[in-house]
Amino acid sequence: MYNFESDYLEGCAPEIMEELIKTNSIQTSGYGLDDYCSQASSMIKKAIHNEDVDVHFIPGGTPCNILAIASCLRPHEAVIAAKTGHIAVHETGAIEATGHKIIEVNHIDGKVDPKSVIEACEKHNDEHMVKPKMLFISNPTELGTIYTLDEIKILKEICNRYNLYFYLDGARLSNALAFADNNLMLEDISHIFDLFYIGGTKNGALLGEAFVIVNDELKDDFRYELKQKGQMLAKGRILGITFKTLFTDNLYIKLAKHANKTANALRYVFEALNFKFYVQTPTNQIFVILNNNLIKKLKQKYSFLIWEKYDENSSVCRFITSWSTREEAILEFAQDLRELI
Amino acid sequence: MYNFESDYLEGCAPEIMEELIKTNSIQTSGYGLDDYCSQASSMIKKAIHNEDVDVHFIPGGTPCNILAIASCLRPHEAVIAAKTGHIAVHETGAIEATGHKIIEVNHIDGKVDPKSVIEACEKHNDEHMVKPKMLFISNPTELGTIYTLDEIKILKEICNRYNLYFYLDGARLSNALAFADNNLMLEDISHIFDLFYIGGTKNGALLGEAFVIVNDELKDDFRYELKQKGQMLAKGRILGITFKTLFTDNLYIKLAKHANKTANALRYVFEALNFKFYVQTPTNQIFVILNNNLIKKLKQKYSFLIWEKYDENSSVCRFITSWSTREEAILEFAQDLRELI
Amino acid sequence: MYNFESDYLEGCAPEIMEELIKTNSIQTSGYGLDDYCSQASSMIKKAIHNEDVDVHFIPGGTPCNILAIASCLRPHEAVIAAKTGHIAVHETGAIEATGHKIIEVNHIDGKVDPKSVIEACEKHNDEHMVKPKMLFISNPTELGTIYTLDEIKILKEICNRYNLYFYLDGARLSNALAFADNNLMLEDISHIFDLFYIGGTKNGALLGEAFVIVNDELKDDFRYELKQKGQMLAKGRILGITFKTLFTDNLYIKLAKHANKTANALRYVFEALNFKFYVQTPTNQIFVILNNNLIKKLKQKYSFLIWEKYDENSSVCRFITSWSTREEAILEFAQDLRELI
Amino acid sequence: MYNFESDYLEGCAPEIMEELIKTNSIQTSGYGLDDYCSQASSMIKKAIHNEDVDVHFIPGGTPCNILAIASCLRPHEAVIAAKTGHIAVHETGAIEATGHKIIEVNHIDGKVDPKSVIEACEKHNDEHMVKPKMLFISNPTELGTIYTLDEIKILKEICNRYNLYFYLDGARLSNALAFADNNLMLEDISHIFDLFYIGGTKNGALLGEAFVIVNDELKDDFRYELKQKGQMLAKGRILGITFKTLFTDNLYIKLAKHANKTANALRYVFEALNFKFYVQTPTNQIFVILNNNLIKKLKQKYSFLIWEKYDENSSVCRFITSWSTREEAILEFAQDLRELI
Repeated sequence: MYNFESDYLEGCAPEIMEELIKTNSIQTSGYGLDDYCSQASSMIKKAIHNEDVDVHFIPGGTPCNILAIASCLRPHEAVIAAKTGHIAVHETGAIEATGHKIIEVNHIDGKVDPKSVIEACEKHNDEHMVKPKMLFISNPTELGTIYTLDEIKILKEICNRYNLYFYLDGARLSNALAFADNNLMLEDISHIFDLFYIGGTKNGALLGEAFVIVNDELKDDFRYELKQKGQMLAKGRILGITFKTLFTDNLYIKLAKHANKTANALRYVFEALNFKFYVQTPTNQIFVILNNNLIKKLKQKYSFLIWEKYDENSSVCRFITSWSTREEAILEFAQDLRELI
Repeated sequence: MYNFESDYLEGCAPEIMEELIKTNSIQTSGYGLDDYCSQASSMIKKAIHNEDVDVHFIPGGTPCNILAIASCLRPHEAVIAAKTGHIAVHETGAIEATGHKIIEVNHIDGKVDPKSVIEACEKHNDEHMVKPKMLFISNPTELGTIYTLDEIKILKEICNRYNLYFYLDGARLSNALAFADNNLMLEDISHIFDLFYIGGTKNGALLGEAFVIVNDELKDDFRYELKQKGQMLAKGRILGITFKTLFTDNLYIKLAKHANKTANALRYVFEALNFKFYVQTPTNQIFVILNNNLIKKLKQKYSFLIWEKYDENSSVCRFITSWSTREEAILEFAQDLRELI
Repeated sequence: MYNFESDYLEGCAPEIMEELIKTNSIQTSGYGLDDYCSQASSMIKKAIHNEDVDVHFIPGGTPCNILAIASCLRPHEAVIAAKTGHIAVHETGAIEATGHKIIEVNHIDGKVDPKSVIEACEKHNDEHMVKPKMLFISNPTELGTIYTLDEIKILKEICNRYNLYFYLDGARLSNALAFADNNLMLEDISHIFDLFYIGGTKNGALLGEAFVIVNDELKDDFRYELKQKGQMLAKGRILGITFKTLFTDNLYIKLAKHANKTANALRYVFEALNFKFYVQTPTNQIFVILNNNLIKKLKQKYSFLIWEKYDENSSVCRFITSWSTREEAILEFAQDLRELI
Repeated sequence: MYNFESDYLEGCAPEIMEELIKTNSIQTSGYGLDDYCSQASSMIKKAIHNEDVDVHFIPGGTPCNILAIASCLRPHEAVIAAKTGHIAVHETGAIEATGHKIIEVNHIDGKVDPKSVIEACEKHNDEHMVKPKMLFISNPTELGTIYTLDEIKILKEICNRYNLYFYLDGARLSNALAFADNNLMLEDISHIFDLFYIGGTKNGALLGEAFVIVNDELKDDFRYELKQKGQMLAKGRILGITFKTLFTDNLYIKLAKHANKTANALRYVFEALNFKFYVQTPTNQIFVILNNNLIKKLKQKYSFLIWEKYDENSSVCRFITSWSTREEAILEFAQDLRELI
């Protein structure tokens, strides 16, 4: 059984494991105040070409989103997100649990539709409705698509016009950055967004995301929020060691390139056999339409996600590759698929 | 510089690291639904002599407390805790952030005073006040003391009388269990309390606690709460691997015995030199009263916590040993101390 | 200037004012524990043909919705409502502020679409998403339409199937009850819904709604929640006096009949002049499409709500009549309208 | 049976009732945007000698406290209050329900002990604890005592030093202002505090308090919070009419003078018969120690609150007079008391 369900199905990248072993017996301060965190923070500031930011390490993606919103918004302020946005669908109401409404807007292949954002801002115009105050996007999106720099600039302009914070969920940001034609670079991100995070969990870390606060207004007391929301690890060092390693010798991009490369191979397999895609994606998520009978047969040997019903006879299936996907697994899958159709 | 500040200053116990390495490339399901978690859960049920419980693995102690309270109480229900309780003092209002009041009661060396619990229950008798619904204790307490079985039975009787859930924060539970004269065993705990957790972070884990729900009423939908509060790790496997290892060959107790043993040695050092203790403790936390000048000198070579002012010239200092405390460090400290006084 | 903006633009029905004057100097207990509340409660139980309910008096409609949801749901549980539902749009995130997500579904003229409710329940099937646990409807809806008994039975069946509480926001319930062809009676409501409220504010009260809890599971400790959410008036007697009066000599229905009657007259005025309606309504809300030039002229003498843009040249306008609408005002409006077109 | 339990046991002051009757059929805007609210606001600004404030009308005292705290504090920020403070004891966790911890400090006859406030601020010095950000006081206190201007200046200085907002709960403020020797005037209050409210419910209103925001930083978007917390009455006009009347011809002080005067008479009755007081109070609350047998006998004819046990044989009893206390009731009580002892 080979598993294409997600990109967090193994332990961590060997380079990270090595560092964890090497540093294991060294004493450090707790709660992320150790030297590893501090070094990792410096390396990230350099990588994003912006020294004027605060970097915090947070165990997971949902916690990043909780903190971005709960720390920055007043009770009556709301966050705008695509209907398909992770916070809107797949976080069990984590945002609402902190008291904030999510205003859901339309999307185009997972990317928020600027027109729909404007409409939401125009509509929410008095005190009987929540006040939009943040725009949430994921890049890559939950559908594996990515934003261009131009698209981001348009959204930024809307944020400026309506006085919205602009926040980027970068759970799989590395996969966008590792895509050859991507033109939204870390440097752009670190100057356009008010806050964003660089995902580790889905790119080879045991756990952990690097949360970056760009806007000075939002920096104060963030560690209080971190602690209050139960997200300040006693051994915060693990996250420091992890990100220090990820940002050494470009490992962060190397791992994502492998994920993208194996995704490309898998995509090619489907294309070559004339399967249709639900959405065209340049990153490590593939949404392909498969016949339900074929799915049943494939499931005997492969694990993958059935995303949603496509029509009576077929379904949209999600395949994800990762830093750890074995290339032979793709080849074997290709052969199996060819035999089954 | 040697650090006695806490028991989470290094990586993890070598046995755990070994398992992490060994399993690193194996694919599993995410979110704690993997075989390691399932095996660890079985081993814990066996160790606590109660199969009729639900076991969940949670990244840290504050999250356990958040979840115990937020998942079980209705909005107007409150939790009773000692004034010194971790939730009352050191969690940045994490419990209140979920909407619940903590009713603070008196303590005797960190243990809740039963009389004070009764008073609180009697006083909160109408709808203009919160309704006490849970009794929170830590064992060992935040002052390193432990409860006897008889003391727990008295509290349990109060819980029954006033219809309170009884919850145990076991962040350092291993240190109580590893104490020779302790008579409150895992088996007692798993039949007396409605919920409790067995701490990992402070006993050799990289991170993680085993949260046990005993009361059937409180079991439903716990995983929803886990996810909502940002506490469901994508690679939940780490926690499964950790606890599987901790509950293999009694490692959990072995590690704590080392912590207690080195604490005993350190305690002996202070006693032999006639230092006074703020509180008598049988576990790995030592609260000793030191002269401020001495503290200044010791701090040049050793790190430890200044707990609070004792009088004009001296302070209460907290020293903690752990599974990883080097025995030579104690010896060296003894010699340094002798020379400094 | 005559105002058709809403049905809460004057003080209270003269009969209520009279009772307030008559009882003004009588001493009673505070917090809704007075005899007036108790008598009003009995009269309501009789009127709804169900003695086995708890009745609480609450100052306003948004508070009723806050309490219904916050008191009954666990943190991960969500409420389903129409996209046009008051809680989804016009309560400034009051529901989310108590920690709960609103799952918005499609509507047909303001009434929830049963198919869309089923879809939402089917889709929310694991712990990464909130758990639907309550269905919220308004009757009349925010668009002035009303549910038939059959429609309610279909929704009830869905609630049973998916284990949802069924809650009715009856802010303008009297206007439905006063409609001749309505077949969803108070007696039906009090046996089908788990909770509902009978609106007073929009039917002649100074303030206040009668909140009815039918489901035994949801009755406990409601007064604690009432107090905690800041909704327990010291002089709760005002609400008791109000509802006692409303349920004496059928005043509740009489007032609503006047509102409906004047609405019918106004509706007839628009029909007779061939104006188109945005939605057909049998109650005291009228949604009519008016040319923007006409609107500008009418606004010089009349106040009413511009609901939304209809097309480039016209808008949907909302006119509301009430228990206090003067019949001559309708006649005068009719004449003015005729002259302006 | 005559009731001394509180000062909200009748309807409203006749002058207010008259205004309600007079204005009853006049149409106004809803939600507190009417002319009456606007006029009342202007009159209050004049009375407090500060035009540079925002005035909002809120239905009750607990809602004022909820709003003051929830609107102004970030999630990790806490409010300091006396252990006897209304928010700490008698609001069913309303403040915690909005996510904020109350740090309870010592009091001297109900007034916060400045030393204890300083200690709390000094102790809460890192991110593992909440951050004190507001000081809450009541004047008169829950024990009927009042602050002097000097005492307030000392607290203000502490607020400045520790960067705390200073908030005054003035549920019975009129009773302090009406006391001849009081030297903390409305003008002082409106320049010293960041926020405060002037109570109406306990001084002759049917309901309502005037909430005043002095600090510019805290003014933005307050009406959003008002709506979200379910405190924006549709017929906000009632509150405007009420406060307009209260601030006409000094009615606000006249009503409180009557309450104080009847309290003085009652206090004199107890003194003359050598009863001991639990606390000396200059306002309309009297805390007297009565023998339990006597209490039993008195309770047959009079209603009053048993505050707490004093010793085996006696209890602290609270008697409250109000704007509406009949002078003969005091005389009759005096005679009954004399006969019973």
